[in-house]
Amino acid sequence: MAHSLSHPSEKAGLPPGTLVHVGPAPAMDGRATLHRYTADQCEIFPVTGLDDILSQRGQGALLWVHCEGLDMIELISSLGHHCNVHPLVLEDILNTHQRPKFEQFDDHLFLVVKILRCDNSLKIRHEQISLLLFADMLITFRETADDLFNPVKLRLSGAKGRIRTLGVDYLAYTILDTVVDNYFALADTMEEAIETAESDLLRRPQPKTFAAIQMLRREMVLARKMITPQREMLLGLQRSESPLVKERNLPYFRDVFDHVLRVIDTLDSLRDLLNGMLDIYLSTVSNRMNEIMKVLTIFASIFIPLTFIAGVYGMNFDNMPELHWRWAYPTLWIFFILLTGFLLFLFKRKKWL
Amino acid sequence: MAHSLSHPSEKAGLPPGTLVHVGPAPAMDGRATLHRYTADQCEIFPVTGLDDILSQRGQGALLWVHCEGLDMIELISSLGHHCNVHPLVLEDILNTHQRPKFEQFDDHLFLVVKILRCDNSLKIRHEQISLLLFADMLITFRETADDLFNPVKLRLSGAKGRIRTLGVDYLAYTILDTVVDNYFALADTMEEAIETAESDLLRRPQPKTFAAIQMLRREMVLARKMITPQREMLLGLQRSESPLVKERNLPYFRDVFDHVLRVIDTLDSLRDLLNGMLDIYLSTVSNRMNEIMKVLTIFASIFIPLTFIAGVYGMNFDNMPELHWRWAYPTLWIFFILLTGFLLFLFKRKKWL
Amino acid sequence: MAHSLSHPSEKAGLPPGTLVHVGPAPAMDGRATLHRYTADQCEIFPVTGLDDILSQRGQGALLWVHCEGLDMIELISSLGHHCNVHPLVLEDILNTHQRPKFEQFDDHLFLVVKILRCDNSLKIRHEQISLLLFADMLITFRETADDLFNPVKLRLSGAKGRIRTLGVDYLAYTILDTVVDNYFALADTMEEAIETAESDLLRRPQPKTFAAIQMLRREMVLARKMITPQREMLLGLQRSESPLVKERNLPYFRDVFDHVLRVIDTLDSLRDLLNGMLDIYLSTVSNRMNEIMKVLTIFASIFIPLTFIAGVYGMNFDNMPELHWRWAYPTLWIFFILLTGFLLFLFKRKKWL
Amino acid sequence: MAHSLSHPSEKAGLPPGTLVHVGPAPAMDGRATLHRYTADQCEIFPVTGLDDILSQRGQGALLWVHCEGLDMIELISSLGHHCNVHPLVLEDILNTHQRPKFEQFDDHLFLVVKILRCDNSLKIRHEQISLLLFADMLITFRETADDLFNPVKLRLSGAKGRIRTLGVDYLAYTILDTVVDNYFALADTMEEAIETAESDLLRRPQPKTFAAIQMLRREMVLARKMITPQREMLLGLQRSESPLVKERNLPYFRDVFDHVLRVIDTLDSLRDLLNGMLDIYLSTVSNRMNEIMKVLTIFASIFIPLTFIAGVYGMNFDNMPELHWRWAYPTLWIFFILLTGFLLFLFKRKKWL
Amino acid sequence: MAHSLSHPSEKAGLPPGTLVHVGPAPAMDGRATLHRYTADQCEIFPVTGLDDILSQRGQGALLWVHCEGLDMIELISSLGHHCNVHPLVLEDILNTHQRPKFEQFDDHLFLVVKILRCDNSLKIRHEQISLLLFADMLITFRETADDLFNPVKLRLSGAKGRIRTLGVDYLAYTILDTVVDNYFALADTMEEAIETAESDLLRRPQPKTFAAIQMLRREMVLARKMITPQREMLLGLQRSESPLVKERNLPYFRDVFDHVLRVIDTLDSLRDLLNGMLDIYLSTVSNRMNEIMKVLTIFASIFIPLTFIAGVYGMNFDNMPELHWRWAYPTLWIFFILLTGFLLFLFKRKKWL
Repeated sequence: MAHSLSHPSEKAGLPPGTLVHVGPAPAMDGRATLHRYTADQCEIFPVTGLDDILSQRGQGALLWVHCEGLDMIELISSLGHHCNVHPLVLEDILNTHQRPKFEQFDDHLFLVVKILRCDNSLKIRHEQISLLLFADMLITFRETADDLFNPVKLRLSGAKGRIRTLGVDYLAYTILDTVVDNYFALADTMEEAIETAESDLLRRPQPKTFAAIQMLRREMVLARKMITPQREMLLGLQRSESPLVKERNLPYFRDVFDHVLRVIDTLDSLRDLLNGMLDIYLSTVSNRMNEIMKVLTIFASIFIPLTFIAGVYGMNFDNMPELHWRWAYPTLWIFFILLTGFLLFLFKRKKWL
Repeated sequence: MAHSLSHPSEKAGLPPGTLVHVGPAPAMDGRATLHRYTADQCEIFPVTGLDDILSQRGQGALLWVHCEGLDMIELISSLGHHCNVHPLVLEDILNTHQRPKFEQFDDHLFLVVKILRCDNSLKIRHEQISLLLFADMLITFRETADDLFNPVKLRLSGAKGRIRTLGVDYLAYTILDTVVDNYFALADTMEEAIETAESDLLRRPQPKTFAAIQMLRREMVLARKMITPQREMLLGLQRSESPLVKERNLPYFRDVFDHVLRVIDTLDSLRDLLNGMLDIYLSTVSNRMNEIMKVLTIFASIFIPLTFIAGVYGMNFDNMPELHWRWAYPTLWIFFILLTGFLLFLFKRKKWL
Repeated sequence: MAHSLSHPSEKAGLPPGTLVHVGPAPAMDGRATLHRYTADQCEIFPVTGLDDILSQRGQGALLWVHCEGLDMIELISSLGHHCNVHPLVLEDILNTHQRPKFEQFDDHLFLVVKILRCDNSLKIRHEQISLLLFADMLITFRETADDLFNPVKLRLSGAKGRIRTLGVDYLAYTILDTVVDNYFALADTMEEAIETAESDLLRRPQPKTFAAIQMLRREMVLARKMITPQREMLLGLQRSESPLVKERNLPYFRDVFDHVLRVIDTLDSLRDLLNGMLDIYLSTVSNRMNEIMKVLTIFASIFIPLTFIAGVYGMNFDNMPELHWRWAYPTLWIFFILLTGFLLFLFKRKKWL
Repeated sequence: MAHSLSHPSEKAGLPPGTLVHVGPAPAMDGRATLHRYTADQCEIFPVTGLDDILSQRGQGALLWVHCEGLDMIELISSLGHHCNVHPLVLEDILNTHQRPKFEQFDDHLFLVVKILRCDNSLKIRHEQISLLLFADMLITFRETADDLFNPVKLRLSGAKGRIRTLGVDYLAYTILDTVVDNYFALADTMEEAIETAESDLLRRPQPKTFAAIQMLRREMVLARKMITPQREMLLGLQRSESPLVKERNLPYFRDVFDHVLRVIDTLDSLRDLLNGMLDIYLSTVSNRMNEIMKVLTIFASIFIPLTFIAGVYGMNFDNMPELHWRWAYPTLWIFFILLTGFLLFLFKRKKWL
Repeated sequence: MAHSLSHPSEKAGLPPGTLVHVGPAPAMDGRATLHRYTADQCEIFPVTGLDDILSQRGQGALLWVHCEGLDMIELISSLGHHCNVHPLVLEDILNTHQRPKFEQFDDHLFLVVKILRCDNSLKIRHEQISLLLFADMLITFRETADDLFNPVKLRLSGAKGRIRTLGVDYLAYTILDTVVDNYFALADTMEEAIETAESDLLRRPQPKTFAAIQMLRREMVLARKMITPQREMLLGLQRSESPLVKERNLPYFRDVFDHVLRVIDTLDSLRDLLNGMLDIYLSTVSNRMNEIMKVLTIFASIFIPLTFIAGVYGMNFDNMPELHWRWAYPTLWIFFILLTGFLLFLFKRKKWL
């Protein structure tokens, strides 16, 4: 949990705008790559300093600078200053505890979105990706590196490459779309886990089933908390009327927005399912208690009176005439059996058996 | 459940606009028909290619192209390109996991609605129907074929045929109306099932009654999730002020909107009923537990003291004067009876009997 | 329940605008009356056909056509066509499953409200009343006939008759006011029933008290569902700025609106009360269970050890020296009494007694 | 409860605008006083008829007419007609079941607020106070008389009397402020009662603690229902831009508005506290049940096996060799003790002891 | 709790605008300091009277007057009158039970925010800080003094001092930022406490764990109640378009706003966690009850029948042939063992073991 909810109170006291990476310690050395593309072709360069980027800018080409790992404070800082990015925006890029948000500036847009993953034990890990969208350049900052954006890179450098003809705003859309499609994968995983828990529940509910349901509910709360602000963010983007997002590409952003709505709908349905499962669990526990109490009550109610009678004829009074009757003992057994039968019949009528 | 909530994560990675049918596998070969009608008459043609449609267009006639089955990607794609439909819209038509939505374009409107059915085991199946409304043409896309729209077809080709005089927007309304009226049939079925469960509950609540209530609640959640977005969709349509929906026909769309509100009201009431039934079930379980405990307590409280006394006079001490009294044994029986009577009286006063 | 929530799925498939009475079968033959009034006097005529109405219209007089029973489809239909009423409105009048609503047309307003009654077993029955308000004529349609509007009729034909000077919009207000005042009567009946259930609950909670609370809660849900849309309806009416509602009469409609708000407030408070009562019931059941368990535990905990000891001295070992001690038996009784006293003291300290 | 929620269904059928006092029967004869004040001085007159007021009006002086008791229908009616007050407003003044509300007329404003008091048994009593604010006159109507407004009267007639220089709208503010400050007193009383109930709960929860919590929750619901509409009412007043409320005095009304928000915040927090206390109560009941069951189980589990063994050696078989062993009896006692010790150890390990 | 929710009903009756310090008694003598700074340097002066401030104002320098302790009514009052501050604002500064709020006046802005701290026992203490922002002066009023604003003071008087170049609105932002960053520290503390309670819960739930969860939930409610209004307050500030907040500094205020949203998100997630923990606790209690009942039922169900049989052969009938059979006793033991085995097998199959 430490990761999921903790807050950068460690930064309290520093002047705002101080560039320090706040977040889970980066497990990797930062690495930045530059895609320089025109409608016809796409070249890839490694980036080590600001100059690598500046020298490629202009000449009608579009640039995508992709930074993986946030320890390249030097590069991020100089890039930010060169591109006239507000110090607080740079701080937001480095401090990965931001809410998803959209901010509009004169010559660029700033977007923060969350990549959600869940590991084998169904714990959700979240990672922040920030986008800076200029007229001819998209800069993206991630905390880690993996293969999530490989399809984007392939399409960008591929043979057909319609993606190369639609501007950097379309590229930004592609990034967002990849991130949001990933939410569906997450929702699918959750749903499978819920189905497993559900069939466990129906077969044989146990405390550990309950724990699994609770854990899923908790991760669901976290996922919902992470994903919901994306809705407002994308709504803000659609309504911004920024010239940086071309009208032609607006339907694409509307499409991502629809996808986010659908993920949220799905998470809500899953939460309803989980709540229903908790009710089922608690009711099963109650029913089982009823079951146990019934067994106890039937045993006790039958044998306690019998034991009493046996106790009576175990008494040592001098004058107990029954003790000396010839057929007393078998008669008593018949009485025992009749009484037992009568009680069983009563319990049967009460539908306890 | 797999069907009801699963998501097209299988498409993740493909470029947007790629036309692939995503959804439950079509159980049928696609089939498209064309209704060409004027105020006076209506002709029906099978459609096998784009030309079948184009050749009929114009000359003051209105067209209704109805596609059943979504494996006709060729036809849908060429039709889309010819009519200037955005690639994402074509993708939404084929990917049947959309939320109900309304989108407005320059010369056409796009609507997605959900057809809901429930089978005998009360599982809700949902199917997507997409509408493309042009000035002189309505194109509808369904996943499967059944007799749902037969009345519409009959009215369109019927003798009187007022429907033929009111434009394709009225035809679109008729489609929507048929879909929404179907929701009432669904709500009726649900309500009957709830009444059955309720009378079961009042006669003799059992775990399986509880399971039925939970199942109904779950399907209700699903139905509500499917139907609610239709409200916004129809509101958007009414407010669009598109010239494609003639002012004269607006009251009809307002009427469908009212019907959707009423279905939602009904589902809400049914959900309240179900919640009340869950409370009743849980309270019945508690009451039955009380009942069981009372029986146990009464039996145990009466016989345990008696057994103790019988045990006392079963002891083998040399010096137990009572054992030798003449009337000791009958006296003890009288004491047993009095004690039992006293305890029964006590329990009576506590209203346990 | 069949009545309260069922839906006109029987109409599915018919073209919209088909005039069929949908609703609980009318227990009466339809009857229409016409009040023709000026500031000075009021005449009452029976209506059998459209001509009875048309012949009275005009000449500065105001008309109130009041239809009771909805089987006069002929009359309603011809009246509607003559007055230029939209076919869907006529359909809404006949189909009494409408939500309360307000619709504004060029020369008339259309209002649907619900009359709520509750019978002796506290089941709520609802009836629809539709109003068509023209500049000089008010037409009202009810499903049944009773004495609800008698005071209105009396005032209209009475000696003073200020009501005759304020226009048909004021008459429409009077109708609405009568309907809404009736809600207060309903709320009063509910409140009395709740108070009865509450005093039952405090004296001696029983499963049937619980059932009564649940039943009341259910009827409350229904009443709230029926009344709440009236709020929006009246708000729409106030904001319509229709010339058919004179500015002078607006405060009256605002007053009805306030009354509806108050009824809803009251129903909300009653629902809170009912929820509190359910909590009390469930907690009482728990407490009673505690009580029962305490009795069992006290009996069992005291007598089980004593019985064990009695059992020990009932054993038949050859060598049990205690059996032969002179004061063993009385000593044992003293021990029994001391042990019992000690356990009672313990339970006392645990506050179980 | 009769008082708190009952409704004026007794008025149903009367024409609107009929002036009848509806509400709890007035315990007092009505009494009206007139404060006539200028910046310099303040005179007080009793009022018996309309002329007493009219003769004092004008000449630059401001008037405050304060009516206590609502049986002066004659005076209220003539005053209303003279000042051009709408009949429905007069009706609202007399019918004390109004929601708090604000209505704006051409030359006066109408406000209804609620005075809340709670008696010793913490039952909330509410009283209505209506304000009619003219340019030079404030008329207030209360149901009863007490010392609530004495400080206002003192300040008005006091030596300094800044209050006399700020207009009748400031006087209206002072009245509202007094009423709202009284809510804080109510909230304080509730809070104390909650604290008492809480410490009872933590010391020793009992059914009567539960009843007290439920009662508090119920009164809280009532208080909230009464106070909340005041928020909208004051918002409406602030936004009315009526010339009757001078811009200079607006901050004062904003201040009262802030106070109402704070009272509502406080009531919400108290409700959260009460809900938490209910949870604690129910959980305590569960825990106590656990406690009881543990005692029973420990006693029964230890002594039932021992009793069985004692029973075995109380059997009368001819051939039971153990009975004749010399050390059998002491050995058995050692076994009894060991078995008891073993079971106690088991229960200890299960943390039941 | 007295502190957290109590209300200034003690002030009821005083005329508004009366300057009295209402709130927890100040533990300190008031102390005011004045920072006078330009881009180049910063001087600090103690303030004892109004003149100390007035003499430093002007000459292009910016002033920050920081008052700690609210017993300096004289100074606050004269400062307020000199700067044209509304009497109600002065009252709000002294009465520390205000809701966080933002008010805009012609030449100054007024802000109230809450500083939240929690002590070792996790009780939240809240303190009010009021800001008056003029064009060239910021006045802040706190109830107590501690080291919270030391970093601000250090930066203001530090060598670099970019803070000195951005205006007093930037200084106000710095104050707000410090306060809001402190909320994160609070949320961290809460989260740690919740984690501790959670691991307690998973290891061994006890009534005191439950009490800790309830206490945390209660403090969470308080914290949420205190922090939430800050959201509206900062929104109002951003939308005020006051010239006192320079456009250049708006991103900073937006940043604080984002932080407040994040804190609220976090508190919501923590509340969800706490609710989940309560569910877990209650379910654990139920499970443990099941456990206890199972042990009791197993012991009782096995030994009660055995004891009955032992009782039968302890009877003293003359004619009990079994007693004289040679192998009766060992046979009975075998029967005992078989019966026990059979019952254990049954319980095993019911998964009770």
